[in-house]
Amino acid sequence: MRVDGVPYRTIWVAEDGKTVEIVDQTRLPHAFSVVALRTLDDAVRAIATMQVRGAPLIGVTAAYGVCLALRADPSDASLERACAALFASRPTAVNLRWALGQMRDALAGAAPAERCECAYAAAAALAEEDVALCRAIGEHGVALLADAKRRSGATLQLLTHCNAGWLATVDWGTALAPIYAAHERGLSVHVWVDETRPRNQGANLTAWELGQHGVPHTVIADNAGGHLMRAGRVDVCIVGADRVAANGDVCNKIGTYLKALAAHDNAVPFYAALPYSTIDWTLTDGAAIPIEERDAGEVARIRGRAAGGAWTEVDLLPPGSAAANPAFDVTPARLVTGIVTERGACAASREGLLALYPERRAAAT
Amino acid sequence: MRVDGVPYRTIWVAEDGKTVEIVDQTRLPHAFSVVALRTLDDAVRAIATMQVRGAPLIGVTAAYGVCLALRADPSDASLERACAALFASRPTAVNLRWALGQMRDALAGAAPAERCECAYAAAAALAEEDVALCRAIGEHGVALLADAKRRSGATLQLLTHCNAGWLATVDWGTALAPIYAAHERGLSVHVWVDETRPRNQGANLTAWELGQHGVPHTVIADNAGGHLMRAGRVDVCIVGADRVAANGDVCNKIGTYLKALAAHDNAVPFYAALPYSTIDWTLTDGAAIPIEERDAGEVARIRGRAAGGAWTEVDLLPPGSAAANPAFDVTPARLVTGIVTERGACAASREGLLALYPERRAAAT
Repeated sequence: MRVDGVPYRTIWVAEDGKTVEIVDQTRLPHAFSVVALRTLDDAVRAIATMQVRGAPLIGVTAAYGVCLALRADPSDASLERACAALFASRPTAVNLRWALGQMRDALAGAAPAERCECAYAAAAALAEEDVALCRAIGEHGVALLADAKRRSGATLQLLTHCNAGWLATVDWGTALAPIYAAHERGLSVHVWVDETRPRNQGANLTAWELGQHGVPHTVIADNAGGHLMRAGRVDVCIVGADRVAANGDVCNKIGTYLKALAAHDNAVPFYAALPYSTIDWTLTDGAAIPIEERDAGEVARIRGRAAGGAWTEVDLLPPGSAAANPAFDVTPARLVTGIVTERGACAASREGLLALYPERRAAAT
Repeated sequence: MRVDGVPYRTIWVAEDGKTVEIVDQTRLPHAFSVVALRTLDDAVRAIATMQVRGAPLIGVTAAYGVCLALRADPSDASLERACAALFASRPTAVNLRWALGQMRDALAGAAPAERCECAYAAAAALAEEDVALCRAIGEHGVALLADAKRRSGATLQLLTHCNAGWLATVDWGTALAPIYAAHERGLSVHVWVDETRPRNQGANLTAWELGQHGVPHTVIADNAGGHLMRAGRVDVCIVGADRVAANGDVCNKIGTYLKALAAHDNAVPFYAALPYSTIDWTLTDGAAIPIEERDAGEVARIRGRAAGGAWTEVDLLPPGSAAANPAFDVTPARLVTGIVTERGACAASREGLLALYPERRAAAT
């Protein structure tokens, strides 16, 4: 997507054919800076410190981390060390394990001397696959958006939570892919962006990437979406997902469930958009999904740009007050109008998902 | 309620019998400071800049503002000017108009020479009435809390939104009055405090006053409450109200509706606690309640304590991203388990409210 008019992905190989470059997401929206990853340690640090985040992008970064490790040392021991270090860098991301598995498979037959080149090719293939998946999600999703009933005028009013945009993937995004596709086709859209406390991925990342790409949007407190839906000012809600159970229950950023309740109460369609790798066929429903409890400091403190321009963290709580920080919630399938994947849209149900992925039917019965 | 062990109200007349003193709520939770109001302008500024906030406290502050105006000039013109200026200081607060009406009534027969003394007596009576109302709300509410089913152990788990504590009133509060009453009686309680973006009245004020009074509590992002309810970690939700329609629709701080939806979805009782003056019998339902759209800067910026201890404001949004800031929402009566007033608890319905206030029945039919 475009930044200051220039097309970017979130991760790419530099002109030297070796160095991996990423957009440092911890400095957004106040600074756009590209960071070079030259070693395995650089890649591990980029994931652990959330310079890159979003399940698909974490997976691709880990794949390139394997490349960087093999460039320094193509031995079996080096490969093992790299996979272990990358796997531990963000243990809850399901795509991380998946991407490392893909890399192992790709390298299985390669002699040490060939491994580095082979790894770069495999990582590039993963990146390209992610772009293709997101583009397909965009194509299927835009059809739903185009059909959505306009409650309040000619512009389609969308609401999204957290960041499931190109910054969470290699390009296009998941929830934002249909929005970008609509914008490209000249459909008039406007996006209500939940700021998404406590880490403010909506205000920091979604607002920034929509703004850079020229998509009209307005940031709101997470509290505001229900009122906007009651007032008829939202036509469609669309979010990403961290994990979807086989029955269509959607685990996503904390607060998603509240928006789904409001959408249901106001007959506003509520969609989750995600690639196949986000569906966890081993879970019959969302009850078993573990909810990460993150550092309470994310609630107690917030970062922003102080008057002089410095990126500054401030304390929000009275001394002595504790905070709690569950990072995700589960939206029951009954509140989800549909799930949009690279294969199309389906009902948020076991039958709906199996209709899109019939090859899973044998395993499921 | 206690601050550092010392009992305080939010507003009182100083020892000179003239100056009005308030707790400056814009500096909480990082500094506790008392501000002297000596003129009408001081009182108008205190309301407009939200040094005092909360419908009941705004009303009492306006009443004392009339006193300060009459102290300087007891003429009819001065009284009119004072009422007009105070009324305009925070136009949406229904108690402001009500309190000014009470003052006019009290001053109706008084000659200019008597007006100042008469006004101080009337303002003091309003303050005392507010304390008595809140204490009664606490007594009626604590009975509901004591009866509430414990889902998760011996401690009663409560959730509140925004600040409807003693800082919103003269003492005790509305939603927090039953919690303080429970705490005084040795009932084991714990309060989940929504931070309440964008102005963070939960994190800034509710957490602070609960902490000062020794009530166990934990601050959460506004996004978290739905997840906690699904997890069985909330026994009762209790909030205040800015205005209640005659059918029981509750207008309160933005985001209240989302918590009411989650409470309803999880069979968690959801109460609104308020004095009679918050009920607007002229409104058949909540649809006609105007929703104040506040400065977008409240969403775009946030204040906290920087590393050196300085109270610092930081920008949260990318340059060029707009924000919207609807300040209240309306929770339909169907989602409200009950309304607690100084007269007791009732169903959130026309019949329920009329059963508590039968004198309104004649006017209503």
